[in-house]
Amino acid sequence: MKTKETLLSIVALGGVNEIGKNMYVIEYGDDIIVIDCGSKFPDESLLGIDLIIPDITYLLDNHSKVKAMIVTHGHEDHIGGIPYVLKQLNVPVYATRLTLGLIESKLKEHGLSGSTELIIIDSESQFNIGEIGLRFFRTNHSIPDCLGIAFTTPEGTVVHTGDFKFDLTPVNEQYPDLHRMAEIGMNGVLALLSESTNAERPGFTPSERLVGQHIEEAFVQARQKIFISTFASNVHRLQQIIDAAEKTGRKVALLGRSMLNVVSIASELGYLRIPDTMLVEASEVNQYAPEKIVVMCTGSQGEPMAALSRLASSSHRQVKVHPGDTVIIAATSIPGNERNVARIVDNLYQLKAKVIYGSGTVTGMHVSGHASQDELKLMLSLMKPKYFIPIHGEFRMLHQHRLLAEAVGVDKNNIFIVNNGDVVDIVHNKAFQTRKIPNGNTFVDGLGIGDVGNIVLRDRKLMAEDGILIVIVTLSKMDGHILSGPDVISRGFVYVRESEGLLDEVSRIAVKAIEQLQDTDVSQWGVYKQTIKESVGRFVYSYTKRRPMILPIIIEV
Amino acid sequence: MKTKETLLSIVALGGVNEIGKNMYVIEYGDDIIVIDCGSKFPDESLLGIDLIIPDITYLLDNHSKVKAMIVTHGHEDHIGGIPYVLKQLNVPVYATRLTLGLIESKLKEHGLSGSTELIIIDSESQFNIGEIGLRFFRTNHSIPDCLGIAFTTPEGTVVHTGDFKFDLTPVNEQYPDLHRMAEIGMNGVLALLSESTNAERPGFTPSERLVGQHIEEAFVQARQKIFISTFASNVHRLQQIIDAAEKTGRKVALLGRSMLNVVSIASELGYLRIPDTMLVEASEVNQYAPEKIVVMCTGSQGEPMAALSRLASSSHRQVKVHPGDTVIIAATSIPGNERNVARIVDNLYQLKAKVIYGSGTVTGMHVSGHASQDELKLMLSLMKPKYFIPIHGEFRMLHQHRLLAEAVGVDKNNIFIVNNGDVVDIVHNKAFQTRKIPNGNTFVDGLGIGDVGNIVLRDRKLMAEDGILIVIVTLSKMDGHILSGPDVISRGFVYVRESEGLLDEVSRIAVKAIEQLQDTDVSQWGVYKQTIKESVGRFVYSYTKRRPMILPIIIEV
Repeated sequence: MKTKETLLSIVALGGVNEIGKNMYVIEYGDDIIVIDCGSKFPDESLLGIDLIIPDITYLLDNHSKVKAMIVTHGHEDHIGGIPYVLKQLNVPVYATRLTLGLIESKLKEHGLSGSTELIIIDSESQFNIGEIGLRFFRTNHSIPDCLGIAFTTPEGTVVHTGDFKFDLTPVNEQYPDLHRMAEIGMNGVLALLSESTNAERPGFTPSERLVGQHIEEAFVQARQKIFISTFASNVHRLQQIIDAAEKTGRKVALLGRSMLNVVSIASELGYLRIPDTMLVEASEVNQYAPEKIVVMCTGSQGEPMAALSRLASSSHRQVKVHPGDTVIIAATSIPGNERNVARIVDNLYQLKAKVIYGSGTVTGMHVSGHASQDELKLMLSLMKPKYFIPIHGEFRMLHQHRLLAEAVGVDKNNIFIVNNGDVVDIVHNKAFQTRKIPNGNTFVDGLGIGDVGNIVLRDRKLMAEDGILIVIVTLSKMDGHILSGPDVISRGFVYVRESEGLLDEVSRIAVKAIEQLQDTDVSQWGVYKQTIKESVGRFVYSYTKRRPMILPIIIEV
Repeated sequence: MKTKETLLSIVALGGVNEIGKNMYVIEYGDDIIVIDCGSKFPDESLLGIDLIIPDITYLLDNHSKVKAMIVTHGHEDHIGGIPYVLKQLNVPVYATRLTLGLIESKLKEHGLSGSTELIIIDSESQFNIGEIGLRFFRTNHSIPDCLGIAFTTPEGTVVHTGDFKFDLTPVNEQYPDLHRMAEIGMNGVLALLSESTNAERPGFTPSERLVGQHIEEAFVQARQKIFISTFASNVHRLQQIIDAAEKTGRKVALLGRSMLNVVSIASELGYLRIPDTMLVEASEVNQYAPEKIVVMCTGSQGEPMAALSRLASSSHRQVKVHPGDTVIIAATSIPGNERNVARIVDNLYQLKAKVIYGSGTVTGMHVSGHASQDELKLMLSLMKPKYFIPIHGEFRMLHQHRLLAEAVGVDKNNIFIVNNGDVVDIVHNKAFQTRKIPNGNTFVDGLGIGDVGNIVLRDRKLMAEDGILIVIVTLSKMDGHILSGPDVISRGFVYVRESEGLLDEVSRIAVKAIEQLQDTDVSQWGVYKQTIKESVGRFVYSYTKRRPMILPIIIEV
């Protein structure tokens, strides 16, 4: 471009070609608005990493432009990165009451309360940030108080749906803002960013009320204690469990830190209605008749330290599962968690419990919080965008969402499947994608943010596979002869007591390597180390078919 | 028991409360017959372990009694442990032709050909081993040539089903031996061991022919190259792919070591009929028009080094996936593999291929090889056993199988859900379970069998999570003063260049710990090491919230 135009730019810093770590940026002129700031869990190759958050280099480089962070809802993949990012970039955070309640609890944990401006909004809010006007529309999802956002700029309107489904019979009677969406669409949408989680799934996602019916049926049939495990943040489901407990005359006990936390925040803010005297302490459960108790607990994904896992292994201090008790897992296993969940079901059956588990479509104990294909088409049809950017999903989901958009009439040339960091620029009503900004995964490990990189991970992987073999030799500073060693220490390689011969042979090989070098005029220790590493590595592999990390250490005295 | 009776004993050394590593033992008097000798893959907590096989201590302790190993079919969870076990316990192996072909190929790989007596049997075989008479019955499964076994002893008949389904329209027209099973049942079955893999699944597993129809439809529709990935050992499915290729005038290329291996063995032995001139080399694929080619490949479980993964990442040397090609994943992901398969589908979509993937019940491209509930009830009804031991499955599957057995009339007191190692003894027509024999997981890591145990694994885990921190100090033999160091070396802990301050501080803390000890009369290096470990560990955790392995090394000069 020759003349300096005011660009409207849209970019994902996280959330495309992946599930989780959502973060989107809308930039117009001197104003940047950030949407969401999520985290995701590492896969098993990222050894020792606790959490992944987006790389915010671009935001730090342009920090004076960043005016606001708007958070669509309170799930971890939308709020989990906030405490880490706010430490580096203090920016006002806008969200609904429940979402802000969950964010505040997170900030408190990180010792950040009061350090950031938190601004409560709702679906009726309307305000400007710089030249960008903001309106919102209510959506349904597996947590209350979710928003879609319309950003109106001089260039046109950009809509971001957040996570959504169309639940036309929502548990909290907070219906989706169909008319608002229609109105936004009528006024013209330049670009739509819509979530793709269930874009592979045909049909219409069932209403959360369906789960409520099945819960109530199970409660009516149970003759003893009922344990029910679900995502703590699914306040709608918690409400239906409370309602079923009330109808069947049971008290409710809560197990698990996040369950206690969410119930406390949600009921304090009025999102969860719990009859007085219904809640009992975990320590009081045994004082009630079994048919008078429901235990609502965390751990539906099989997390080894969570309440359900402890109950299944009879290692919970206060509450026990007895023969004949009913255990309901009101969730579907996220891929990767099936084996842990299966182990828990096995243990519960060992305890002679009745277990209701398995896919939600079979048990009726779970429905998705995300729009299926027909709902995605409905959103596209309401918004009638000129440009479409499918977000929130791995490539195959974005790809399916593209096909849906084409099917409802979006011009296929106007659909952008982007990678994180790819910028879609729009100027004079025309979009193009030519530039990229820094992006990536920032690893959180303990207190470190971004201090673990590829080298550290490669070393962890090497040691995880075959351990480490340390060869230490003390050489004389004077003439380089061996003063002590080589001593061979191994960890995670072989059981030492049964492998003394092998380790002795390693020592002999190291001596030979050193002596051969001493006959030459090589004098750098680096060459010594490399030679020891190679000759020991070769021997160890031929003997064991293992490749431990080999770490030669030379001490000069 | 006061008088010495001849016991009939049944025990699992692997395969109950787990999937895989099947091994069962039937013992009567001085004769032991082993059924199957499988392996299983480690879960992600068993770092660096290649394979798990059964602990065969009991067999080694009684090696003179062990007369035969009978193998029901050629899947890894039934034959994978054979080379490792034969190295320690040479025993004649009985199996059908295809099964033996697969076993022989495995023995060749391990340099064991010719060292063991291999005896071909078929469903018509009948012979005695000591006082035990053996008969067989043909079953259907996702590999041809499967057997169930009836062991007739003076005490009664024990039936082991192997893996099975009732495919009444089998691809190879080898129908299940319903009449033989009925006859065995009529003659009286004392104890039935029946597989439980699909005991949670209602209904009747569809015939493999269903997959053939869907493959043919997809082949008819494809306009370019077709890639189809399935388990190499599913010879029925390979046959149906070959048949569909023939009908649609396509040549077939094979990719992947196990695909080449199974096709070669199965066609040589007559289990796979491939028209002359149909097979082409991978290197020749590009010489044919795209609509004339089918590539049959390994990697349907997303294995990162297998053919499908290489194709998806465009890193296969000879064959490429082009836009418009069709890729069929004719398999269902085994739990734990979903993420790898999903990554492959993403990559294939990136290449603009048409991809047919997902659950077999949706795509019709996969059916299970295992009996569902109605077939399990059919087997129980045919056999009418007095005692029932559900096998092959995790606890919840064994539990569901028990319920099925009760439903068809087996006395609930006569059903034994056992753990590996639990012995069911039967004498005078009465079964009881009171004793246990040694059992467990033997780990294979490289060339080592059983040399990696809990200590090694614990160390690997520690280093995988947070790396290692080595603190080396050279002390004078004379007076214990520090001659050199402490030097601090870390691997997999922090990125060293950015953490020099931290490592310097570790060194200072080590010096302080040593100096404090020098002021006392402690002189054992063990105490020095422990003190360094603790003080450094405390500091590192408080500073980073990580717990690397801390390895103090003291060199005396």
